Amino acid sequence: MATIKDIAIKAGVSVTSVSRVLNRRGYLSEELINKVHQAMEELHYQPNEVARSLQKKESRIIGLILPDVSHPFFGELTRAIESYAFSRNYKLLLCNSQLDPLKEKDYLSMLKASQVDGIIMGSHTIDTEEYLHIAQPLVTIDRRISSRIPYVSSDNFEGGVLAAEKLIKKGCKQIAYIGGNVELDLLAKKRYEGFKKEIDHSKCKLHFFQTNINGFNYEEYEELAAGIFRECPEIDGIFASSDIIAAAILKEARRLNRGVPQDVKVIGYDNVQLSRIISPPLTTIGQPIKEIGEKAVDLIISQIRKERVTVETVLPVQLIERETT
Amino acid sequence: MATIKDIAIKAGVSVTSVSRVLNRRGYLSEELINKVHQAMEELHYQPNEVARSLQKKESRIIGLILPDVSHPFFGELTRAIESYAFSRNYKLLLCNSQLDPLKEKDYLSMLKASQVDGIIMGSHTIDTEEYLHIAQPLVTIDRRISSRIPYVSSDNFEGGVLAAEKLIKKGCKQIAYIGGNVELDLLAKKRYEGFKKEIDHSKCKLHFFQTNINGFNYEEYEELAAGIFRECPEIDGIFASSDIIAAAILKEARRLNRGVPQDVKVIGYDNVQLSRIISPPLTTIGQPIKEIGEKAVDLIISQIRKERVTVETVLPVQLIERETT
Repeated sequence: MATIKDIAIKAGVSVTSVSRVLNRRGYLSEELINKVHQAMEELHYQPNEVARSLQKKESRIIGLILPDVSHPFFGELTRAIESYAFSRNYKLLLCNSQLDPLKEKDYLSMLKASQVDGIIMGSHTIDTEEYLHIAQPLVTIDRRISSRIPYVSSDNFEGGVLAAEKLIKKGCKQIAYIGGNVELDLLAKKRYEGFKKEIDHSKCKLHFFQTNINGFNYEEYEELAAGIFRECPEIDGIFASSDIIAAAILKEARRLNRGVPQDVKVIGYDNVQLSRIISPPLTTIGQPIKEIGEKAVDLIISQIRKERVTVETVLPVQLIERETT
Repeated sequence: MATIKDIAIKAGVSVTSVSRVLNRRGYLSEELINKVHQAMEELHYQPNEVARSLQKKESRIIGLILPDVSHPFFGELTRAIESYAFSRNYKLLLCNSQLDPLKEKDYLSMLKASQVDGIIMGSHTIDTEEYLHIAQPLVTIDRRISSRIPYVSSDNFEGGVLAAEKLIKKGCKQIAYIGGNVELDLLAKKRYEGFKKEIDHSKCKLHFFQTNINGFNYEEYEELAAGIFRECPEIDGIFASSDIIAAAILKEARRLNRGVPQDVKVIGYDNVQLSRIISPPLTTIGQPIKEIGEKAVDLIISQIRKERVTVETVLPVQLIERETT
């Protein structure tokens, strides 16, 4: 079997250069990478990464625990995390909890045991106790589970304030908030707190609706939307805590011939691609999805390097006005 | 450090049972799993999965190479693959090529070297040469890259036929096909072939449009849609090769006050959740996304077990009529 020295000779580069390419360390020119990879191929050299990871005590794998990668927000977040992790030479093990606590627990045991270098957790299940006893670097997204574990979120409170200000300014009087279940201890709850604070300071009336605790069921969003229009036809402004909930509102409004934005104004949250695709295009609170993903990866890498990290990272949001307000 | 025997005694079960839980083999009751996990936690036992995988020469990881997990079809496909792989005790390493051949090549080298147990490839880049020299089990999705490598697809040809039949039956005369670039050697091209065959047998005129080869740019879909309505205002029926392209058509039709389905009828492809959310809800060709994902995983596992596998798996599609036809 070929050795690293054989590859160096074949590629016409130093043994150190080959080692750097194999370990993806330091600055690597494309030319160098190509030379070494070509020599490896010609010599049928297959470095055993599992053996290497044992020796180096690192796997260069980050585990990502999310509720559902097919949800537009989590799909875009996963892409952001994967893309940035790749640029930092980390791979991504995707763990979809599907909001099933047993599945999540099983994944977590597996991640704890398999020497992934770090875990990014954006799960929505209730019990976070399990996460407090993880040896690896951990970062949570939109969830604060202890005073020690770094988390990244967008400025949910400010997002709620911006949405309320816009609806009030547009003349809405009967204003609804529709969001995820507040029993889930997510930072997304602050969207409601910021929204409520502004509405309470106005002369508007606030109506509160929440989804089932086992969320992410689009059919449930449609039923919720239908119920709101049926029970509170006076509502003329709606802030939904995700673009996909807002989409269900728009669909139901169209079915009932309620004009948007004439009869009822609607604001979503996230600014996923969906918000630009639906009709009418949705006014929404934009989360910096790319920055959230990159910051989470950076916080993992800093912990791996034993650097000090800040526990709280709250990134700014902005209101993006389209045609529903 | 605790041994498996210590755990067995602590949990009050046999050593074999502990081993089965650790290796996730055979029928495992929830009670047994809980007992063993509790004993492991109490004894601070951390099985080293990397060491185990070396010993057993398996990683129980499947690598998944896709163009873009945030594209609705690939997001739902990834969820289907992850969910089924998990039920078969495999984990998923997510590799997003982002249609970048260099990134894909780098991922592939890594997967070849890292002893993943198998690779599922749904990539859209042009060069598939690299995939012909992989030692691990390989399955491709919607792509036939050799006569030896198993692939899974939906019945793209039949999908095209069904779409054409519907548009003809609804009285369309000037019919457009809008799809991915045909230079990409994807089986999705057969959607056009089936569609063209039916249109050619009718008295309708066929207009053909294709996206840029570096696809998945929603803004590009909108420009394409605008160009079609501008240059061929006579078009009264459109078959788009993905729901997301169809969504761009609907958005442009709305902007131009072209009634759907009165003035122009639209059919998509995929039946992702988006097709139910947009207004009006989209008539589309439904791909069996869950079955495609499950079949791909089964074909990997069968190859791992050295079982014979069929090279071609073509799963049935169906037309789902909503409000755009």
